[in-house]
Amino acid sequence: MVPPDGYITNGQPPREVLDQVIKELNEMFPKRVSTSLAVREQFATDFSFHEVSPADAVITAHSSEEVSWIVKICAKYKVPIIPHGTGTSLEGHLAALHGGICVDLSEMNSIVEVNVEDMDVTVEPGVTRKQLNEHLRDTGLFFPIDPGADASIGGMTATRASGTNAVRYGTMKDNVLSLEIVTPDGSIIKTGTRARKSAAGYDLTRMYTGSEGTLGIITKITLKLFGIPEAISSAVVNFEDLEGAVNSVITTIQWGIPIARIELLDEWTVESINKYSKTTFPVKPTLFLEFHGSDAGVKEQAERMSDICSDFGGGKFKWTVDAEERDTMWQARHDAAWAAIALRPGSKPFATDVCVPISRLADCIIETKKDINEAKIIAPIVGHVGDGNFHVALLIGPDDFNGDLEIADGINSRLIQRALDMGGTCTGEHGIGQGKMQYMEAEHGPALEIMKTLKRALDPDNIMNPGKIVAV
Amino acid sequence: MVPPDGYITNGQPPREVLDQVIKELNEMFPKRVSTSLAVREQFATDFSFHEVSPADAVITAHSSEEVSWIVKICAKYKVPIIPHGTGTSLEGHLAALHGGICVDLSEMNSIVEVNVEDMDVTVEPGVTRKQLNEHLRDTGLFFPIDPGADASIGGMTATRASGTNAVRYGTMKDNVLSLEIVTPDGSIIKTGTRARKSAAGYDLTRMYTGSEGTLGIITKITLKLFGIPEAISSAVVNFEDLEGAVNSVITTIQWGIPIARIELLDEWTVESINKYSKTTFPVKPTLFLEFHGSDAGVKEQAERMSDICSDFGGGKFKWTVDAEERDTMWQARHDAAWAAIALRPGSKPFATDVCVPISRLADCIIETKKDINEAKIIAPIVGHVGDGNFHVALLIGPDDFNGDLEIADGINSRLIQRALDMGGTCTGEHGIGQGKMQYMEAEHGPALEIMKTLKRALDPDNIMNPGKIVAV
Repeated sequence: MVPPDGYITNGQPPREVLDQVIKELNEMFPKRVSTSLAVREQFATDFSFHEVSPADAVITAHSSEEVSWIVKICAKYKVPIIPHGTGTSLEGHLAALHGGICVDLSEMNSIVEVNVEDMDVTVEPGVTRKQLNEHLRDTGLFFPIDPGADASIGGMTATRASGTNAVRYGTMKDNVLSLEIVTPDGSIIKTGTRARKSAAGYDLTRMYTGSEGTLGIITKITLKLFGIPEAISSAVVNFEDLEGAVNSVITTIQWGIPIARIELLDEWTVESINKYSKTTFPVKPTLFLEFHGSDAGVKEQAERMSDICSDFGGGKFKWTVDAEERDTMWQARHDAAWAAIALRPGSKPFATDVCVPISRLADCIIETKKDINEAKIIAPIVGHVGDGNFHVALLIGPDDFNGDLEIADGINSRLIQRALDMGGTCTGEHGIGQGKMQYMEAEHGPALEIMKTLKRALDPDNIMNPGKIVAV
Repeated sequence: MVPPDGYITNGQPPREVLDQVIKELNEMFPKRVSTSLAVREQFATDFSFHEVSPADAVITAHSSEEVSWIVKICAKYKVPIIPHGTGTSLEGHLAALHGGICVDLSEMNSIVEVNVEDMDVTVEPGVTRKQLNEHLRDTGLFFPIDPGADASIGGMTATRASGTNAVRYGTMKDNVLSLEIVTPDGSIIKTGTRARKSAAGYDLTRMYTGSEGTLGIITKITLKLFGIPEAISSAVVNFEDLEGAVNSVITTIQWGIPIARIELLDEWTVESINKYSKTTFPVKPTLFLEFHGSDAGVKEQAERMSDICSDFGGGKFKWTVDAEERDTMWQARHDAAWAAIALRPGSKPFATDVCVPISRLADCIIETKKDINEAKIIAPIVGHVGDGNFHVALLIGPDDFNGDLEIADGINSRLIQRALDMGGTCTGEHGIGQGKMQYMEAEHGPALEIMKTLKRALDPDNIMNPGKIVAV
């Protein structure tokens, strides 16, 4: 029934094979499989503009062992498997390009073990970052990685997510201690221990982190935690021009000020969030800042940062320790994507994601802004500028979706080439999915062959989220 | 001339094959190949007790392209290749267990590019950490990772080294931005960019970091740098018992004090360094500490740490900003291995390297000390305790080398099992080499199969430092 080389290269598995897989899944997991179009479409929908391409069935898994059985059934018939967390990804990761079974992990949402003394936690993949921090509140610990959306920890691991706090706390790569993975043959493996460091062989933890479901399914994640800072303060400062803002950031990083968040918002973004979130920030290039430390420490950091900003033409440095003011500011920042969409109701954002060496950041943003202005498209910019990472939200539609998409695609292509020429990467944190596969050759050159070799060796039948990251 | 499956599984390549490889290398690189026993033995000698097993020839490479040509010649005849940095590794990494060619990288010691604004540097693999920091001095930047020995950056990358500063700055895994690798077929690839973060496909940088020359040869390394702290202070504090010292460490880490170094020395170590380095530290469990930050910051950190230590029975907290005092202290710490050997002149140290979750550290050290005392072997203990990592220097010989080795091996085996039972790893920073291969199954279980799959896929003829990390 199954050809030796699977079906993938030929498109979709035949209907009778799918029916057989769905039958076996139904027998093993009664009432857990859905084949309704509405459900299949819901689980194929992400936060991007990519086309919704539903799987042939959705099954909800409740444990690692269940995931293992599901994978074993799919593997037997060489039918693709697409894992699903919260559906907040941005590069078409959830599309069932070659059909197959979507494995919904959202109900695997237990916090398995908190080790307060060791400052680590083990969670199932469906736990979201807000749920985790809610759970941790009484321990005095928190998990800092914050991509904005209330994403699942499994999804954040799978895409190597980061976000606003990464400048101080690192990305998922730096904060995953070990993983449990169901491999493409249904085996359950553990990639590391709870030790803070290890030199015991190949770094499988980092290999699976960012592999976007293409090498296996993440079924448990052990994370580093941090003490909730004794003091948190925030600040807002605006600049006459973008260079001033970016040069302030460069100097801050070089001086080693352990800033927790340093976010750039261009005029368009400030304007859009003022409208959407009813804030009243002056419409200028602006930095949103946050400091973590002792009472004296955050004060000292803020004073230094204030001096730096004023050296680069920054306006009044509005500093506060008020939690409500701070929450309002970050909520507005997190809602920037929605605020952008509201600039053109009915549109969808095409989010770019380059990351460049920080010395090139101002140039990269300014050249990109010029390109945007020439194209006459609405495109606010926000940036995790401490890392050199920024996003342009190119608004597509609703009037001429395809025309806008072509324009956006052109801007993105030129932006990625610009970033690569500057020694940067096409994606700082969103991942490759389908959307950035075409840039892999330009970014990686012959190293792309090594990635393909990896994929072929670890998923020889190409059943794990096929058509993402690398084409094999 | 070459069998389809190479020679490795059968032991050594035949003499005529080796002669042919050496002839071709000689033709391409006249006067660069040595076959003298003295040279071959020198390049197979590391800092460990493992048997010296020389390669059939040593060739000195001067560029990535030369390494590529050398690998191509060896690959053609399926002859093993063993890369060499400074020879300071500890697990028999340099032994030519299946014969072959040792590639000496020590003369590839150029600092290729320093980007001060981006705080990164690209170096050739033979650059040593002291050479790098010497070179960087005028830039205000430094590279923090410090394994004690003046190891090469290539070797440090290959073994995922860390050392005394890792508690604040992370290990090599956290500080390598990208690598240039010569793969087993002689291709030259680049694994990443200078961007601070990326989600662009599989994390090849981390895959090669810690791969100990078994997947390819590292020919360039791009590293993160840090600003030299405005203020550095250090402190020494001793305790009546080990628990007090370790509990102080746990509390420090939990409070998020960004301590730069926190090293534990047991009584034996203190006694040995007092003798060897002519210091006068009280012979008690002792912490050596270092703080980095602003003037006010290091003072605040030290005050907090002093309070914590006194809560756990610490003696006088001797704090200083004097650079000379600090240097004396760290030189003594770095010479601890030599000081240990001096306790039993002519002996060799068998260095253990477990790393455990910090909550189990005191238990792990105390149980191990009991085991050591029962075995009546001399074995000072030092620890990078902020990470949960410690070393026992089990002294072997000179009177009964094999008898002592057996005793040490027993202590190490039990220590590793103890660490694994506590959720730890058999090696925090020394790597697997030959010495810890026997513990890979216990630590990794079925994940070991994935490592073997990786090795087979990326080095199908098993010519890259064969017989290390995984047996395939």
